[in-house]
Amino acid sequence: MCRWLAYTGEPLQPAALILDAQHSVVAMSQNSPLGAETVNGDGFGFGWYPADDREADAAGTRHPFVFRSIEPAWNDQNLREVSRAVTSPLFFAHVRAAAGPPIQQTNCHPFRHGQWLFMHNGAISQFGLLRRELALAVDPALFPLIQGTTDSEVLFHLALTFGLADDPIAAMAAAVRRVEEAGHAAGVKFPMQGTVAVSDGETVWAFRYSSQGRSRTLFHSADVQTIRSMYPDADRLSLFGDHAQVVVSEPLNDLPGVFLEVPESTVAVLDPEGYHHHSFLDA
Amino acid sequence: MCRWLAYTGEPLQPAALILDAQHSVVAMSQNSPLGAETVNGDGFGFGWYPADDREADAAGTRHPFVFRSIEPAWNDQNLREVSRAVTSPLFFAHVRAAAGPPIQQTNCHPFRHGQWLFMHNGAISQFGLLRRELALAVDPALFPLIQGTTDSEVLFHLALTFGLADDPIAAMAAAVRRVEEAGHAAGVKFPMQGTVAVSDGETVWAFRYSSQGRSRTLFHSADVQTIRSMYPDADRLSLFGDHAQVVVSEPLNDLPGVFLEVPESTVAVLDPEGYHHHSFLDA
Amino acid sequence: MCRWLAYTGEPLQPAALILDAQHSVVAMSQNSPLGAETVNGDGFGFGWYPADDREADAAGTRHPFVFRSIEPAWNDQNLREVSRAVTSPLFFAHVRAAAGPPIQQTNCHPFRHGQWLFMHNGAISQFGLLRRELALAVDPALFPLIQGTTDSEVLFHLALTFGLADDPIAAMAAAVRRVEEAGHAAGVKFPMQGTVAVSDGETVWAFRYSSQGRSRTLFHSADVQTIRSMYPDADRLSLFGDHAQVVVSEPLNDLPGVFLEVPESTVAVLDPEGYHHHSFLDA
Amino acid sequence: MCRWLAYTGEPLQPAALILDAQHSVVAMSQNSPLGAETVNGDGFGFGWYPADDREADAAGTRHPFVFRSIEPAWNDQNLREVSRAVTSPLFFAHVRAAAGPPIQQTNCHPFRHGQWLFMHNGAISQFGLLRRELALAVDPALFPLIQGTTDSEVLFHLALTFGLADDPIAAMAAAVRRVEEAGHAAGVKFPMQGTVAVSDGETVWAFRYSSQGRSRTLFHSADVQTIRSMYPDADRLSLFGDHAQVVVSEPLNDLPGVFLEVPESTVAVLDPEGYHHHSFLDA
Repeated sequence: MCRWLAYTGEPLQPAALILDAQHSVVAMSQNSPLGAETVNGDGFGFGWYPADDREADAAGTRHPFVFRSIEPAWNDQNLREVSRAVTSPLFFAHVRAAAGPPIQQTNCHPFRHGQWLFMHNGAISQFGLLRRELALAVDPALFPLIQGTTDSEVLFHLALTFGLADDPIAAMAAAVRRVEEAGHAAGVKFPMQGTVAVSDGETVWAFRYSSQGRSRTLFHSADVQTIRSMYPDADRLSLFGDHAQVVVSEPLNDLPGVFLEVPESTVAVLDPEGYHHHSFLDA
Repeated sequence: MCRWLAYTGEPLQPAALILDAQHSVVAMSQNSPLGAETVNGDGFGFGWYPADDREADAAGTRHPFVFRSIEPAWNDQNLREVSRAVTSPLFFAHVRAAAGPPIQQTNCHPFRHGQWLFMHNGAISQFGLLRRELALAVDPALFPLIQGTTDSEVLFHLALTFGLADDPIAAMAAAVRRVEEAGHAAGVKFPMQGTVAVSDGETVWAFRYSSQGRSRTLFHSADVQTIRSMYPDADRLSLFGDHAQVVVSEPLNDLPGVFLEVPESTVAVLDPEGYHHHSFLDA
Repeated sequence: MCRWLAYTGEPLQPAALILDAQHSVVAMSQNSPLGAETVNGDGFGFGWYPADDREADAAGTRHPFVFRSIEPAWNDQNLREVSRAVTSPLFFAHVRAAAGPPIQQTNCHPFRHGQWLFMHNGAISQFGLLRRELALAVDPALFPLIQGTTDSEVLFHLALTFGLADDPIAAMAAAVRRVEEAGHAAGVKFPMQGTVAVSDGETVWAFRYSSQGRSRTLFHSADVQTIRSMYPDADRLSLFGDHAQVVVSEPLNDLPGVFLEVPESTVAVLDPEGYHHHSFLDA
Repeated sequence: MCRWLAYTGEPLQPAALILDAQHSVVAMSQNSPLGAETVNGDGFGFGWYPADDREADAAGTRHPFVFRSIEPAWNDQNLREVSRAVTSPLFFAHVRAAAGPPIQQTNCHPFRHGQWLFMHNGAISQFGLLRRELALAVDPALFPLIQGTTDSEVLFHLALTFGLADDPIAAMAAAVRRVEEAGHAAGVKFPMQGTVAVSDGETVWAFRYSSQGRSRTLFHSADVQTIRSMYPDADRLSLFGDHAQVVVSEPLNDLPGVFLEVPESTVAVLDPEGYHHHSFLDA
């Protein structure tokens, strides 16, 4: 349905990955070879944590900024400006191919709640059938904070309801199981599809899961030192620090070995120790 | 919060009232002297029934068209074109001053359901507090049809739930009472505010009501023959047929006697017999 | 660069061709198999002459309406409404893939001047180099009427300058030659590329020409009676009158024999006598 | 026609002046008490020089970023994000009330050329009459860089043509005189109206001038130390460094003595030495 990218590492101008990479997120908006749809022109979003303490809350926790638009990313002038004007140690970018919910900023990813960012590529099947039940399953205190009408934003609020702040992996598992329960009760065979990224500003959790076991593609970057040893002449690598890592819907370039597939039914974790992954809801 | 106009009568180019009147709806978008806000620049909408049977359903019932935009009406070029290109025996126009819900097409009035149009100027007080309960009170079969996030669209779906198609006045009364019940339970003193227009393509029902008894302004036009006798030299009147009538948030011109106030706690009815009104929810 | 369609014939709801055809103009906006670009998501436009005398000038000449938007056509709700709400005996539709000039309504086709409509698929090569000279070649009285910044709109105003109203084919030839002269003087080998449609509300002139002799594709529909005899079971044909004819960037369906290629260096003429064509600027 | 603000001083989050001031630029977009128009809802722009060397050119010169939108500023969510996410030692903000040229990003101020920013409140009278001549007076090498259709952008390119980079005050004087010459030749009595700000990233030059001698309002802030001594209890002043200074269409707050009028026919200069001004084109 969509394409997305999450970066964590040394503070970076997001344009390096959003605009300047061979198969950048903006390039994917017009042509994504591995996508369920090749055109992802129904708006975009960009969320980033600052490299300093601006807008941090009283406890010193950094909150992200979000820039979203209903225009196709490929010709958006403001995205070109903003993604060069800021520097961020952790950012999300998303280009949308709408499955049904209307084209409006409140339906653009990433979604934000306090220090959390969330984005999704995929769908809850037959969401119209399940929307009311799933909306009711959201904590009543969180319900009024839902601003748009996507399945993805409801999934985020279910994860928040089920304790995202305390245990992100368990909360996402509970949210997905809740969706599957509602779906199966309504006769939907494969209710959940997609890849999801979520972050608290320190760690990125990236989930690849579908009820059918045939999920959207997801890749992570190899270790930067490894990439450097494979491609010693790649000048572009000097842009990136030793801790730079990415999880992304499809490879940002054609260099063999740089992007590795995240397996099915897996949660990938990108934190200061680097990349690792665990099985997630393996049936 | 907003300004609106409803017309019924001989088929007319809507631009006559939307653009060309002295205090047209578009003029009100930039400056509405009687408005709670003087600027109504947060999008607009225009809904109209065709003068022929195009898009009529199997039973021959005519369904309305809707054109909505998030741009201010005052500089919108497309509204200028469309409101001259069509002719309609019954149309609604609305300019929005957003109270809270975001600026997006799905939050622009009028809302449509089958053959019905609905628009609102005003608010459900502290809607965030009441949103979940009121959404739950909507018929589960109608719930997935809510496309935006306004209080007004929920109010429309409550009216549909309570039988708008069978008895519009009773259904609106039930919807308003349901809002007041939810509000009072949550400690909101005056939950309902506003003027509402609803139509099935034959009749316009226009409600002026607020829990506090201090509603937004609402006016209806005098009988065309009466206006002609008052202003025999007004060439512009030749645009309008003998059955032309309007209900509108504030007078479209400064001519004394042409626009008459609709009283508080009243439903005004515009149908082929002309204008009449009844008390509505008079405490 | 773009895709376009022009219809003339019995009054028709434009949605029949813009939305409902197998390979409608809206479908081409997301995927145009024969296009130089497959995605034409940089805005769209729709221009139509009314089926009655509304907005006709003092001489009774009918002037067209125009609806343009910077959103991709494929998800635009208003286009769905407007293209069903009106009926037209002659209309243009265009979906844009921007080559350089920014995404803004004033750069969306068709362009209008009095009773004339104009649209273009293609480009003036290296327009930046030639822009000043070509703008100066426009009649000073017409110069202030240029509202956007495309090569196409300048080409239109050159054609107006060279007598479009008197002899459309000669005027277009002079405009193209002027572009080629400016281009060659600046060292541009193949200055002109594209297909152009122009109409006065009675006749459609469609030009297929490029300096290199390798023009964008262009097709016209076969005679309706012929199509009916080929496809007697095609219910959809009942939508169309005996004089319905189309010229379009690529076929609207896959039925053999329904759409026929317009040759290189040709002007196709669609008028009440049907389709005919002549060579145009054949080197 | 518009309202604008220019800041220079210690690096600051622009939101402090754009959003958070009592009469912030965003507040002026909906209601500007001293404006020729009270509503400035036809788009906005925000241009800022970075606080570091990102995007500096080979000579180390810092180039500004620009964020522009056709939405009214008052409800724009992205402006809220971006104006807090960046820090800048020199920035421009502008809210537009369109006089004629269409609502599109390329007509939103500020305009940018290399290291230069430019914005304008006012108009060239009867610009349609003068547009061709003034466009021709622009250096042919600069002509293709004009992206929109405003009088203001042409004025900027005239100033660039007349040596803005070498002597901004003389170049602006020559540009204004060229406009007046063209206007007088065409019978326009008072061709030039407005206030203009221009910057190279180090200094802000702000011009208040009109051919009639009745210019739009313009104010500059008093010296920060003076303001602190007048208002020792104003906590908000701690946001601002000792070199913070502003030039703005109307005062950002109601505190007497904080904002001082820039006289007619004056150029105000804000540089590291503080505020000073000279007469400009005093007849």
